[in-house]
Amino acid sequence: MYIEYLPFWDGISALERDQIEKSSEIIHVPAGPLSLSKLSKKYYILAVTEGRVRVYMLAEDGKEITFYRISQGSFCTFPLEKDWNGCPQYEVLFQAELSTVLLCIPVQLHYKLMDTSVAYVKSQLYVERKCCARIFGIVNEMLSKHLESRVAGLLLEESRLCKTDKLKITHEMIARHLGSVREVITRVLKVLQKQNVLLLHRGVIQLTDIKKLQELL
Amino acid sequence: MYIEYLPFWDGISALERDQIEKSSEIIHVPAGPLSLSKLSKKYYILAVTEGRVRVYMLAEDGKEITFYRISQGSFCTFPLEKDWNGCPQYEVLFQAELSTVLLCIPVQLHYKLMDTSVAYVKSQLYVERKCCARIFGIVNEMLSKHLESRVAGLLLEESRLCKTDKLKITHEMIARHLGSVREVITRVLKVLQKQNVLLLHRGVIQLTDIKKLQELL
Repeated sequence: MYIEYLPFWDGISALERDQIEKSSEIIHVPAGPLSLSKLSKKYYILAVTEGRVRVYMLAEDGKEITFYRISQGSFCTFPLEKDWNGCPQYEVLFQAELSTVLLCIPVQLHYKLMDTSVAYVKSQLYVERKCCARIFGIVNEMLSKHLESRVAGLLLEESRLCKTDKLKITHEMIARHLGSVREVITRVLKVLQKQNVLLLHRGVIQLTDIKKLQELL
Repeated sequence: MYIEYLPFWDGISALERDQIEKSSEIIHVPAGPLSLSKLSKKYYILAVTEGRVRVYMLAEDGKEITFYRISQGSFCTFPLEKDWNGCPQYEVLFQAELSTVLLCIPVQLHYKLMDTSVAYVKSQLYVERKCCARIFGIVNEMLSKHLESRVAGLLLEESRLCKTDKLKITHEMIARHLGSVREVITRVLKVLQKQNVLLLHRGVIQLTDIKKLQELL
């Protein structure tokens, strides 16, 4: 299992591999806000082995925006509060979108590896760089794309993640993904419905023309 | 000099310190775009010892936005193109805002340290995390703040950096810092002038009421 999720597995020593094998834990979390501060007293998360985690920001005015989503089978990073070393932190938050399973190690072992293993620290650097590149993508979208195009992108992502064209997603949730507000999203969805790209039902958005939706990107 | 700029100095071995001392170079670059790809064939930048570097993004539609500025005396990171490991990269660019001096090491030594020194890799991780936190700040601003407030913030930063209330900055340059366009910035500046916060001269913006400007943040 470890080699499948942990890119640093081959780069650490046999002793370190043994320590991880002996002390790692599989933690099940229900869908909902992931209270990292509670968890991180004891554990450091290494991977999402099942389910899906949304990483988002809560901006000062209460708007939310999704930075990225960590899917099943992904090595990931959830820097702990104190890891930020006094950077202005803003609220980066985590939400299990489904019932989710996390591969964790004791937080003491994490700090030990951070002090002794180049491969481990490098893997943290690379995965954070990847996350950073995704946030560049968000900034690019906010600057360059119309909201219509961003809504289209989100609906396509949602359809891919949930493997269905009938999306159980509220207008409110779309707004939270995109840093917008519900009223504005409803307006955009109605425009898309008029263009015969989708059908709005109560609590469900049915994508009826994927190709047209892709053209909007 | 090294201990002043390089946070990892005490954490690396005597041999590694010696290697850096023997092979590091001081490189002078004129104000203007910093062509990192040309430089990075030979050198990896460790610190800005004089001058100032602006790190910005060129979005798809041609708009620019400043992520942060690296001031004199700062350890920094400029991940090389291949460091991004195939992440969607967008255009993150660098510009020397003044005539600037960089402390560099040969790129081979950088990669060697990345393979052998935990302290070195950790310092890269921490400085990139700090940069990432600043970009969170940009996203927060874009979501939560009025443009007027963001212009006020930029003018105050500019005044602090240049140690003057008479800013030699064009409306176009303000737009490029904030991911906006010149016409919109001119409109905002005229509103601020009407509020007696600043005076617009040809090529110069004179801040006349710093306190009021701070209240706009």
